[in-house]
Amino acid sequence: MHPIVTVGSVAFDSVKTPFGEASRVVGGAATYFAVAASFFTDVRLVGVVGEDFAEEHARVFAGRRIDTAGLQRVPGETFRWKGEYGFDLNTRETIYTRLNVFERFRPVLPDEYRSTPFVFLANIHPALQTEVLTQVERPRFVAADTMDYWIEGTPEELRAVLRRIDALVINDEEARQLAGESNVVKAARAIQKLGPRLLVIKRGEHGVLMTRDDGFFAAPGMPLDTVMDPTGAGDTFAGGFMGYLASAPETTDEVLTRAAIAGSALASLAVEDFGLDGLLRASSKTINQRFQAFKRLTHFEVL
Amino acid sequence: MHPIVTVGSVAFDSVKTPFGEASRVVGGAATYFAVAASFFTDVRLVGVVGEDFAEEHARVFAGRRIDTAGLQRVPGETFRWKGEYGFDLNTRETIYTRLNVFERFRPVLPDEYRSTPFVFLANIHPALQTEVLTQVERPRFVAADTMDYWIEGTPEELRAVLRRIDALVINDEEARQLAGESNVVKAARAIQKLGPRLLVIKRGEHGVLMTRDDGFFAAPGMPLDTVMDPTGAGDTFAGGFMGYLASAPETTDEVLTRAAIAGSALASLAVEDFGLDGLLRASSKTINQRFQAFKRLTHFEVL
Repeated sequence: MHPIVTVGSVAFDSVKTPFGEASRVVGGAATYFAVAASFFTDVRLVGVVGEDFAEEHARVFAGRRIDTAGLQRVPGETFRWKGEYGFDLNTRETIYTRLNVFERFRPVLPDEYRSTPFVFLANIHPALQTEVLTQVERPRFVAADTMDYWIEGTPEELRAVLRRIDALVINDEEARQLAGESNVVKAARAIQKLGPRLLVIKRGEHGVLMTRDDGFFAAPGMPLDTVMDPTGAGDTFAGGFMGYLASAPETTDEVLTRAAIAGSALASLAVEDFGLDGLLRASSKTINQRFQAFKRLTHFEVL
Repeated sequence: MHPIVTVGSVAFDSVKTPFGEASRVVGGAATYFAVAASFFTDVRLVGVVGEDFAEEHARVFAGRRIDTAGLQRVPGETFRWKGEYGFDLNTRETIYTRLNVFERFRPVLPDEYRSTPFVFLANIHPALQTEVLTQVERPRFVAADTMDYWIEGTPEELRAVLRRIDALVINDEEARQLAGESNVVKAARAIQKLGPRLLVIKRGEHGVLMTRDDGFFAAPGMPLDTVMDPTGAGDTFAGGFMGYLASAPETTDEVLTRAAIAGSALASLAVEDFGLDGLLRASSKTINQRFQAFKRLTHFEVL
């Protein structure tokens, strides 16, 4: 069992889907990641919030294996995002993104975080991702997320990050864009040449595709009759994935495979309610049940 | 082992993808279906071609378990279709569709076809699908495909078909459209209420999702580094699926599950080359290898 340090956004989200809306609820990539990973191991959170982030909001971290010593509290307002989803939840329009205190965020790892063996760099400026890596002493396993904005806008800084990480956790569209290659297998191989040994491609409702030493692993999305809000599903997947990895003694192909299912299980629980609610309600029992449900969903006998 | 009768288009296709093009090659839904299903059982083909469909073209059926007694040859030109695929092969533009002899096609089953226990109605006018069903004596298992054109244009005729079939094999967009429901689980339940006990939802590169008595089965698409031409992949899937079902003594959940993998295996072999070439080159050996590859791609141990 190893602790994980994660760096990324802690935010107030407002979201509207065809099934309802949530206003100014706690969200952000690092939040979803931390809550998900904390089901499996100790999580150390690095981020920033404003003075409007009150004790009631910090409650999402309380009673969990989440250390918030690295969560800076500074004058100003917390990062805010508002988005609206279309009819089939596969399209999303950003109404606004207000960086607020996140605009001047410089990640600073408390001394006791610096030897954390597992690191997850959520989707932030690649220069900040590098700043984090310079503060961690010989991490054992580093994973990162990124997005189209950095792929286009800061390609050199992103390449410097890619050279230093073990795993990239990324959307399929972004994988194709980063590689400049429409075939997803070729795109994966091209990205591996840029640094990360492991590539985990997130496909929304279609699940994930992951490279392994011994060939790809694919997990479909769990068919759910209630999907309320997909916000944070990708970060929740990453949290379950990394949390499971960090809880295992070794990072073998078998462990990576189960980690992808752990991430998928948590993401499937998260999207069944608005914001963090589905994830906060998860338990070892419901996670194990979802794990078994994934087995029933995908397994077959070869005659 | 039971024979299958299939009714649908036999065509000349011209196709352009980012990786090359094929001009006036034999295609059509019933062709892909018949060749795929013939790896598992005897197939009886009902369709129509024109005088331009020469012996060299009929060669795609020769030496296989395909009976072409029901393939009418009439004056005029064979159905022609031309399409062009976009960068990532997920979008397709139809350049033209020339129905030609297919425009006046009325399916007539040779007497010896009338007691065929397995029936596949490829994507044709639902009124013609019904005409076929009136000619088959108490079939054991009937599956059908359809498309947006019939869902919008002939909803009553389509509903009459749905009431008489065991399985509907359909694209995800079309399932959502037919059900008027964006959630795919709810859409599946709604379509089952219209008649078919079994729904197989085709998701292109993301594989298939299938209802079973005991919960959904999902097979992801096989990650392939060479996808030349997706034309006919859905009909090839249906052929492998139905062929496997017809070759089994019973249609249990386990058999349905393996049938979905058989269909996926054949479809994955088909798209690796243009037109029918990938499928014509398939063998028991390559199909079994692909079956095993699907197991490696998807299986995991629950600890």
